Amino acid sequence: MNKEVDLKKAPRYCGISTFMNQPYTKDVTGADVAVIGIPFEMGTAPGNIFAPKEIRHVSWLLRSTSPLHMVDIWKELNIVDYGDMTVFTGDWEQSFPLIEKELEAILEKGVVPICMGGCHSVTYPQLRAYHKFYPDIALIQLDAHTDTHDVYFGKQKYTSGSVVRRAIEDGLVDPQSSIQVGIRGTMYSPGDIKQSQDLGIEVVTTDEVAEMGVAKTVEKIRRRVGNKKVFLTFDMDVVDPAFAPGTARAEPGGITSREVLGILKGLAGLEFIGFDTAEINPSHDCANLTTILGANIIFEFMALIAMYKKQKN
Amino acid sequence: MNKEVDLKKAPRYCGISTFMNQPYTKDVTGADVAVIGIPFEMGTAPGNIFAPKEIRHVSWLLRSTSPLHMVDIWKELNIVDYGDMTVFTGDWEQSFPLIEKELEAILEKGVVPICMGGCHSVTYPQLRAYHKFYPDIALIQLDAHTDTHDVYFGKQKYTSGSVVRRAIEDGLVDPQSSIQVGIRGTMYSPGDIKQSQDLGIEVVTTDEVAEMGVAKTVEKIRRRVGNKKVFLTFDMDVVDPAFAPGTARAEPGGITSREVLGILKGLAGLEFIGFDTAEINPSHDCANLTTILGANIIFEFMALIAMYKKQKN
Amino acid sequence: MNKEVDLKKAPRYCGISTFMNQPYTKDVTGADVAVIGIPFEMGTAPGNIFAPKEIRHVSWLLRSTSPLHMVDIWKELNIVDYGDMTVFTGDWEQSFPLIEKELEAILEKGVVPICMGGCHSVTYPQLRAYHKFYPDIALIQLDAHTDTHDVYFGKQKYTSGSVVRRAIEDGLVDPQSSIQVGIRGTMYSPGDIKQSQDLGIEVVTTDEVAEMGVAKTVEKIRRRVGNKKVFLTFDMDVVDPAFAPGTARAEPGGITSREVLGILKGLAGLEFIGFDTAEINPSHDCANLTTILGANIIFEFMALIAMYKKQKN
Amino acid sequence: MNKEVDLKKAPRYCGISTFMNQPYTKDVTGADVAVIGIPFEMGTAPGNIFAPKEIRHVSWLLRSTSPLHMVDIWKELNIVDYGDMTVFTGDWEQSFPLIEKELEAILEKGVVPICMGGCHSVTYPQLRAYHKFYPDIALIQLDAHTDTHDVYFGKQKYTSGSVVRRAIEDGLVDPQSSIQVGIRGTMYSPGDIKQSQDLGIEVVTTDEVAEMGVAKTVEKIRRRVGNKKVFLTFDMDVVDPAFAPGTARAEPGGITSREVLGILKGLAGLEFIGFDTAEINPSHDCANLTTILGANIIFEFMALIAMYKKQKN
Amino acid sequence: MNKEVDLKKAPRYCGISTFMNQPYTKDVTGADVAVIGIPFEMGTAPGNIFAPKEIRHVSWLLRSTSPLHMVDIWKELNIVDYGDMTVFTGDWEQSFPLIEKELEAILEKGVVPICMGGCHSVTYPQLRAYHKFYPDIALIQLDAHTDTHDVYFGKQKYTSGSVVRRAIEDGLVDPQSSIQVGIRGTMYSPGDIKQSQDLGIEVVTTDEVAEMGVAKTVEKIRRRVGNKKVFLTFDMDVVDPAFAPGTARAEPGGITSREVLGILKGLAGLEFIGFDTAEINPSHDCANLTTILGANIIFEFMALIAMYKKQKN
Amino acid sequence: MNKEVDLKKAPRYCGISTFMNQPYTKDVTGADVAVIGIPFEMGTAPGNIFAPKEIRHVSWLLRSTSPLHMVDIWKELNIVDYGDMTVFTGDWEQSFPLIEKELEAILEKGVVPICMGGCHSVTYPQLRAYHKFYPDIALIQLDAHTDTHDVYFGKQKYTSGSVVRRAIEDGLVDPQSSIQVGIRGTMYSPGDIKQSQDLGIEVVTTDEVAEMGVAKTVEKIRRRVGNKKVFLTFDMDVVDPAFAPGTARAEPGGITSREVLGILKGLAGLEFIGFDTAEINPSHDCANLTTILGANIIFEFMALIAMYKKQKN
Ligand SMILES: [Mn+2]
Ligand SMILES: [Mn+2]
Ligand SMILES: [Mn+2]
Ligand SMILES: [Mn+2]
Ligand SMILES: [Mn+2]
Ligand SMILES: [Mn+2]
Ligand SMILES: [Mn+2]
Ligand SMILES: [Mn+2]
Ligand SMILES: [Mn+2]
Ligand SMILES: [Mn+2]
Ligand SMILES: [Mn+2]
Ligand SMILES: [Mn+2]
Repeated sequence: MNKEVDLKKAPRYCGISTFMNQPYTKDVTGADVAVIGIPFEMGTAPGNIFAPKEIRHVSWLLRSTSPLHMVDIWKELNIVDYGDMTVFTGDWEQSFPLIEKELEAILEKGVVPICMGGCHSVTYPQLRAYHKFYPDIALIQLDAHTDTHDVYFGKQKYTSGSVVRRAIEDGLVDPQSSIQVGIRGTMYSPGDIKQSQDLGIEVVTTDEVAEMGVAKTVEKIRRRVGNKKVFLTFDMDVVDPAFAPGTARAEPGGITSREVLGILKGLAGLEFIGFDTAEINPSHDCANLTTILGANIIFEFMALIAMYKKQKN
Repeated sequence: MNKEVDLKKAPRYCGISTFMNQPYTKDVTGADVAVIGIPFEMGTAPGNIFAPKEIRHVSWLLRSTSPLHMVDIWKELNIVDYGDMTVFTGDWEQSFPLIEKELEAILEKGVVPICMGGCHSVTYPQLRAYHKFYPDIALIQLDAHTDTHDVYFGKQKYTSGSVVRRAIEDGLVDPQSSIQVGIRGTMYSPGDIKQSQDLGIEVVTTDEVAEMGVAKTVEKIRRRVGNKKVFLTFDMDVVDPAFAPGTARAEPGGITSREVLGILKGLAGLEFIGFDTAEINPSHDCANLTTILGANIIFEFMALIAMYKKQKN
Repeated sequence: MNKEVDLKKAPRYCGISTFMNQPYTKDVTGADVAVIGIPFEMGTAPGNIFAPKEIRHVSWLLRSTSPLHMVDIWKELNIVDYGDMTVFTGDWEQSFPLIEKELEAILEKGVVPICMGGCHSVTYPQLRAYHKFYPDIALIQLDAHTDTHDVYFGKQKYTSGSVVRRAIEDGLVDPQSSIQVGIRGTMYSPGDIKQSQDLGIEVVTTDEVAEMGVAKTVEKIRRRVGNKKVFLTFDMDVVDPAFAPGTARAEPGGITSREVLGILKGLAGLEFIGFDTAEINPSHDCANLTTILGANIIFEFMALIAMYKKQKN
Repeated sequence: MNKEVDLKKAPRYCGISTFMNQPYTKDVTGADVAVIGIPFEMGTAPGNIFAPKEIRHVSWLLRSTSPLHMVDIWKELNIVDYGDMTVFTGDWEQSFPLIEKELEAILEKGVVPICMGGCHSVTYPQLRAYHKFYPDIALIQLDAHTDTHDVYFGKQKYTSGSVVRRAIEDGLVDPQSSIQVGIRGTMYSPGDIKQSQDLGIEVVTTDEVAEMGVAKTVEKIRRRVGNKKVFLTFDMDVVDPAFAPGTARAEPGGITSREVLGILKGLAGLEFIGFDTAEINPSHDCANLTTILGANIIFEFMALIAMYKKQKN
Repeated sequence: MNKEVDLKKAPRYCGISTFMNQPYTKDVTGADVAVIGIPFEMGTAPGNIFAPKEIRHVSWLLRSTSPLHMVDIWKELNIVDYGDMTVFTGDWEQSFPLIEKELEAILEKGVVPICMGGCHSVTYPQLRAYHKFYPDIALIQLDAHTDTHDVYFGKQKYTSGSVVRRAIEDGLVDPQSSIQVGIRGTMYSPGDIKQSQDLGIEVVTTDEVAEMGVAKTVEKIRRRVGNKKVFLTFDMDVVDPAFAPGTARAEPGGITSREVLGILKGLAGLEFIGFDTAEINPSHDCANLTTILGANIIFEFMALIAMYKKQKN
Repeated sequence: MNKEVDLKKAPRYCGISTFMNQPYTKDVTGADVAVIGIPFEMGTAPGNIFAPKEIRHVSWLLRSTSPLHMVDIWKELNIVDYGDMTVFTGDWEQSFPLIEKELEAILEKGVVPICMGGCHSVTYPQLRAYHKFYPDIALIQLDAHTDTHDVYFGKQKYTSGSVVRRAIEDGLVDPQSSIQVGIRGTMYSPGDIKQSQDLGIEVVTTDEVAEMGVAKTVEKIRRRVGNKKVFLTFDMDVVDPAFAPGTARAEPGGITSREVLGILKGLAGLEFIGFDTAEINPSHDCANLTTILGANIIFEFMALIAMYKKQKN
């Protein structure tokens, strides 16, 4: 697709804001990877719905080669920007089936999707779609929060804070191969972490990441997921607010962007079937710090896809 | 209550952020007016839920005397800050009955409520509550939009854009005594205004306000509402974005804050049973322009209550 | 093209940021109007190059019907977003011929272009292209500045401040049918206005607009251009900085957005062959006031095209 | 001094930030006008102390000719930037005598000072200095507030809110020739305006300005000051917050920058002995709207000095 | 008090902005800890006075359990928000005795106060009050600056920069048990650190913290304070400006929020008699980074109180 | 010059914004160091031209003693602020010879210049000037990018991205003694780093800095430059965007300000003949984080000059 593009031929900020100026199309046939927006939010993190638009907006800053693996992803991959799914923010009953169905159609084409939320609740309908194609998924969750709470406000079961519990309860991911990394911040109760462990998922706190360093964190993750197919869900609040102010539940003391990139670098070789980003909130951002970081992370997701493709061939 | 307060005794910015530093209480007995937050939003104007907090936050700037009527409202009225209603943003089915019921309890005490939204949809459950006490209400709506659309996204009937249609359909206000002022901006179709008129409500566009001036606009409103009991709903987007950038649907070419204050001044003597503000969106605000204007408008609502009380006695 | 689109079917903020979500294409065949970005700037108004991207970004806020003429432009016109021209900001010698040539190819298709600068210098290569198709053009310039200075910094002849002088010198527009409206602000010398008049173009200051009002301003403009083909160039600094802070040469005391819209409304019936916007500077903007206003103005340009088309048929 | 400067020779944003790039010197001998910073603030409008720095910072935007009178002030006047007086913000007892003394030394040289506050309290020590040279001064005060309150917080007598009362009590200005224009906003009590009138000074509210228009406002002012020597004190909060958000006591519904410039234009011919600006607060500003307006107003003060000088010669 | 509160019952952003939605009361009887605002500032860090209001404003983000000690502080402690002390910013002579007296009354009730400045000067009157109850206090000062300068501007002795010198001179703290941590940034002279050491207090620079790490820093602090009663004063500028931009004297190269939290974690078990925060400046903040960090730090102060209480029982 | 200045005599924020309030003069005779602005930018990093003005603007925050070496630079050095060179942003053909010539005149006086760009392209004309005085220069480049690309947009050879290639090609620096530190971020191709190495310059990536730490990084640099005369060019994008958001090509994962200061500290004793800063972009800055860091870095450049001077004597 963009194999011939010369990045120095014209200023990259020119043109319609697709992700990295890649072609916009609803027909993903032949694509290796599709970037997809899901502008949905349950109400308590207002502004999240603007993340897909804003990430695309700054993504022209990216060049085609990943410094983590020294791979030119435009050479290795056919990339498309699928645009946004049609969703109705606030109304999960109407929107989640639409997400699930639309994602299924994309997965059928053999594409690796990278969905941009939205709040973290949208990972649930995604996982329902993935589950139909991949019955045994290891989940890597980078997040400040466990998201394994049961019910909010007496009755809300499909929120950002309960998305991982729902996914495990419904057998969408294998908790024994899954891991949450970066947990920190004030908690509802001293049992917040245990409630994750009770569901079978491994928990690594930010303090533990800081103590053992990036290399050992990577080891821990790789050991956990083994050679399973992997879905990586990236909640931006895992990053320290200084590096990612654009999030609605800022928790000081987080991991740095250097550490995040180090972790992603360490995951090369795993078989990723999909990725998403969540809780990027442009309304809280400064100087586009968070959306630029988000664009770089999505770019490195693509590099991980390229690395697996290269090794497989 | 605050009869003895000397505004020059201590810096007004000191203290807990209640509206104008008035007492916070859930017991409104004996109050003339209660300021009430409704941090609810349907999803498409993210940030509206923060309006009550932010309006209170800047309201210390206000002094006790209205320059429009030269009345010291702290002398005339017992004012309380009721805090916020418990609502679940995004979920109208759970929240609207709560709003209706909580407002009823307040109305039972003979208080004049001033509710701070939230998006404009919250006017509907308020009007349901008012209707039980006042069966014949004239509605004054200051808004850039008619809010008389029927259905959004195939099925959503209780949105900001349909709130006035719902209220008229349900007989909550008398359209023949009701009036929309300030309509402008790009429209869904050339019939947008006629659809309001077909419901029986009078429409005054911003262009008409600009042409006839404030005095004639006031006359038109007063003629329309006659001596009925009046509910005034204030959608901040009626004001030009230069004066009120903090709104999610900015429509350039609006009326100025001076014109808004002129209109409010002209309404003295009407019997207001309630007020609300909607679509104040701190996430889009600059230099608190919009929340400061909002606080001043709420203050002038109180002055209108004081003026009616004085004249009645 | 978008004849069937139901604006209430899905949230308008969804999707790739083209102008009003209109189709992006380099093939303008069959289009009535094409929105075109020219991200070029001569250096002294840094940030102007981001205007096309940012205007598109907020343009989803627009609905399809103009309130000025009650015309649904999506019904009347085939609209496309052409994306950006390839230009090399700062280097006019390389860029201007490219602009001229690319615009010629578009004009050949009978499309009415609406170009989004960039700084005001880009009007010059545009006018060179128009001149080949329309040898007798009346220019309507809305601007705080005359842009009829000769040379900057000893040698620069193709700057924003000299663009109108160059166009007149080269016979690209007929000064006797042309008019500058909104001139104000501190000047290089008392002779700044006379230098425009000496070139044959009529000058209307902001003070004169304020004094005579919108209706007489419109009359003056219409009398000047007569029934010639018209090119309208809109320099955002004509608007008061409170309404349009996003400009690099803010001149307090300008006309309001209401007045701008009033003037545009008054121009219905003229035969516009093209439009452009200039000096919209997102780096100086607040709350997107300026880009939202810019999007509305571009939308009203389209309404003027629709009005002429309707009247002709 | 700058008689030979060619504004188009080099970009105006180059260089050290003095006011309009005028020479910085503590020796004002031979100067017609000196711009002087007084970064002093009594504590309740934090951020005012940065006004002198920020006004200078944006003043390069100005060109040398006033559009109000078509006079090139660089041709007519010798202008210097005196820098800031040494003051100790918060401590009036230490600072006011220093201001008074330093200003005396400047007045001795026959210079017309334009002082940039700081909060409005600093007008008091200025007037003490002026009084020694000009025993009979008419005061023109453009302000949203009367500043004729007596005491704050039980004992503070030299605040922004009492500065005009103090000046009149001490005989520093002749109240019978003095006038306050633009009064508005919520007040401490219904008697706030009467307390000014009781001191002998005339009060014109913003509502009155709006009603009678700029021309009659000018007439009223000129009639009041007659042919006395005039000191003009400009409190930025007289301007509507949309045009001047950078002020700590924003009062919606104010006069526009166009109206301010109209009033200043109307004052040509009066014998101004000095000017100051107050309550410009960069911490509350957006897009430099307020400091740019402030710089333009200071520039027009200079034009008024030039106009008087021309007429006298 | 809040023992029964279910944080998931209603959105935490609802309601009046007290600290963590805790009850607002001037009667601290029975409380374990009281959060108290002191909106006082000496003039050179304008904006500090808004810190208490803004910290409360974001404090709803906090949940009840500290991740550092896995303790639910709402279960362990009775917490109240005392509101603000009445102070007159800029005027220390009037304000300091008021602070001292008001704090004494609170200390008499056996409450542990957490005061939110304001500038750092307000620690002095606090220490005067503490001294009456606790004659032998170890001071832990986290700060980029030593604050042991003698006199500013020829005569000012009670400034932020001299507060620690004054406290030691007056015997309010025991320098031999006291320690300053985080010192860095450009200095008035090479002797700045020695002047602290000469007063008897230990100095640990940011460089030293970086070199030895958090664990050894904690050890150093604990060794210094021994088993004395401890007052901890937290100057926000100790944190790197990337993590805490909202401070008026930003010194690049500071400690991170992770390191700050690590240090606080290490202090569990000490007997804290009080805490304060200083130099949090909302006027310089971005995305509430600083006030959110401030709220988290205050929360962890409470956790330290809870830890001591638990261990004592 | 400033030997007698007492920093505590008056508030440092008073006065005209020269660098650290040092004297502004075009006559550098007798100065040890001159701070010089070069407000030039090639077009793709709009806003860079405002860096000199904004760095000066915040530089009053600095005190006279470097904490890295405990040296009072005002005691050791005669410092002047030269103001800005006259350049024509966007037009390198006109501007580069002017820069070269003006810098030569300064170098002739034996001054060590510290130039503030502007974009990185301006290092080229500087190096041409230095080369005439110092034929054998070691270059230390702190940068996220190699800047060794050949041509942009088909023909542009003198851009920010090619400045180091040009300098080496023209023999202006000795590549064998030169080193690039901090390289990272997405790249045009996997060969980006090798293209630098092929030119003979050593490359140290950010990852390598992170891995080996500051001490070893310093060693590597010192070994490379040996005892040659050194020019240090500082591209602000070498710093992580959290610490320096004000740059047009933000690359997440950068080195921290603490690490930058650590590296600078380690370079004491080298013979620096000049310094510059580039790519500081106030239009992208937050809370002045970047300009304050820039001012501190320039200050530490001066400290390095002082250290060499002391050791030489
Ligand atoms: Mn999370
Ligand atoms: Mn999450
Ligand atoms: Mn509306
Ligand atoms: Mn509405
Ligand atoms: Mn212009
Ligand atoms: Mn122009
Ligand atoms: Mn005022
Ligand atoms: Mn005043
Ligand atoms: Mn400090
Ligand atoms: Mn301190
Ligand atoms: Mn770089
Ligand atoms: Mn570079």
